[in-house]
Amino acid sequence: MEPVRIIVVELAFLAKLSAAQRAHDSIVCVGLDPEPARIPSSYGRGPEAAVRFLRDVVHATAEYVSAFKPNLAFYERYGEAAMDVLAKTLDVIPDDVPVILDAKRGDVPNTSAAYADALFDAFRADAATVAPYVGLDSIAPFCSTGRFALVLARTSNPGAGDFQDLDVGGRPLFERVVEKIAARFPSESCGFVVGATYPAETRRLRALAPDRMFLLPGVGAQGGEVETTVRAGLDERGGGVILSSSRSVLYTEASGDHMRGAAAAARALRDAANAARAAAMAR
Amino acid sequence: MEPVRIIVVELAFLAKLSAAQRAHDSIVCVGLDPEPARIPSSYGRGPEAAVRFLRDVVHATAEYVSAFKPNLAFYERYGEAAMDVLAKTLDVIPDDVPVILDAKRGDVPNTSAAYADALFDAFRADAATVAPYVGLDSIAPFCSTGRFALVLARTSNPGAGDFQDLDVGGRPLFERVVEKIAARFPSESCGFVVGATYPAETRRLRALAPDRMFLLPGVGAQGGEVETTVRAGLDERGGGVILSSSRSVLYTEASGDHMRGAAAAARALRDAANAARAAAMAR
Repeated sequence: MEPVRIIVVELAFLAKLSAAQRAHDSIVCVGLDPEPARIPSSYGRGPEAAVRFLRDVVHATAEYVSAFKPNLAFYERYGEAAMDVLAKTLDVIPDDVPVILDAKRGDVPNTSAAYADALFDAFRADAATVAPYVGLDSIAPFCSTGRFALVLARTSNPGAGDFQDLDVGGRPLFERVVEKIAARFPSESCGFVVGATYPAETRRLRALAPDRMFLLPGVGAQGGEVETTVRAGLDERGGGVILSSSRSVLYTEASGDHMRGAAAAARALRDAANAARAAAMAR
Repeated sequence: MEPVRIIVVELAFLAKLSAAQRAHDSIVCVGLDPEPARIPSSYGRGPEAAVRFLRDVVHATAEYVSAFKPNLAFYERYGEAAMDVLAKTLDVIPDDVPVILDAKRGDVPNTSAAYADALFDAFRADAATVAPYVGLDSIAPFCSTGRFALVLARTSNPGAGDFQDLDVGGRPLFERVVEKIAARFPSESCGFVVGATYPAETRRLRALAPDRMFLLPGVGAQGGEVETTVRAGLDERGGGVILSSSRSVLYTEASGDHMRGAAAAARALRDAANAARAAAMAR
């Protein structure tokens, strides 16, 4: 008798994302950013409180999202417990929901390779955010087979324009960054981070990179509006966007049941994004 | 009787660096980057081998350096053990030798604040490297009182010019980056990273930012030459530089006594840097 062979197929990021988007009817991503001062006091304090809080957030919101996005800064603030909090958080994320590790790494090639190994091998990233300044060779390790880089193009902060808007031959730096990176790395392994707070810039980048996945952070607490953001970012087929929110889902300050608040916020964001998408595609 | 009062004075980075430079007659920094494939097999394997190896490197080289620079990428590759390896390494660094945590962080302000807290509060960074692309508000948390940012200006990798050389009104981007940052943050809390592999660019930046501390990585394995680098980077008073080397000190492949090799490499680098500095100042 032949032995039973179990083959585990690891889906690449875009395929896994697409499956999760269909399964949960959602283009929304929730950022898992533990902020000690905002975690409800009923969870206690310290790293274990963060683990318990994030576990509940994942359980409360998973059905409404197509990705989770832990930002490593908020884990590293726990010092020696950082990687333990991260690992325990990743452990509770359902296998069919892709994980974007928001790390904004970028260093010389030998070092970038170590960062990429850390994110994709030591942890279970399906995609990672990457900072472009060091150069194309600093991005390459995050784009190799089975990996996916979301490279900073336009960030969501008020100071985004300080360098990103500098005029390079009549066009802003952030457009040159996208052009150069898109010319080097294929859309199967490389997309971009485009702040939801900058819809005009998002529209320009969509025209420049019609086939790229855009991660659009900054919806909610940072001021990005769902309808405007979705309309600006959608590709021709009504796809190509991951709408991301963190604080306004995690810390709703709902009196009483915090997780009911998180679930309601995630669901409302999903529904608003879907409505905006349907309206945009109907036009 | 009055109680004895012990006052611990925390020196700011530049003062601590200056004291260490005088005490060890050195402008050299050693990068503490554990690479599993290069750590001598006699140390065993895994995170504990890295801790033992780095402890020995610190002991062997401390008298020849004015700073140590752990690059977080090489710690993060140990996954859940990452922060433990880092903490144990920081523990063995003598109190009078400043620590530059090489992390190249940079994110939107709320997140950059978390990164800065992680590096300066959860760990014991005296200075940290920072990536500029996100904007001035992403750099600010690393420059606040008692902290010191070394912002990427020109990196040491072959692809450094991909974005850093883009023409912004007749001048390369990396010069604009330095100008804007120097205009915002004082020299007491902000210097720059300038790759030792680019002496011509180093000279231009020294002219542009005469009062700034430059961290010059890439000496040795990456190809930066000591004499050229020191001459290009020195300020008018023969200071303003931290010459950094990692692989060519840590992994000398000395047969037999690896730590004798590391000590000899650190001492040779220190002596070469001092000779280059003396020659440059004598002219």
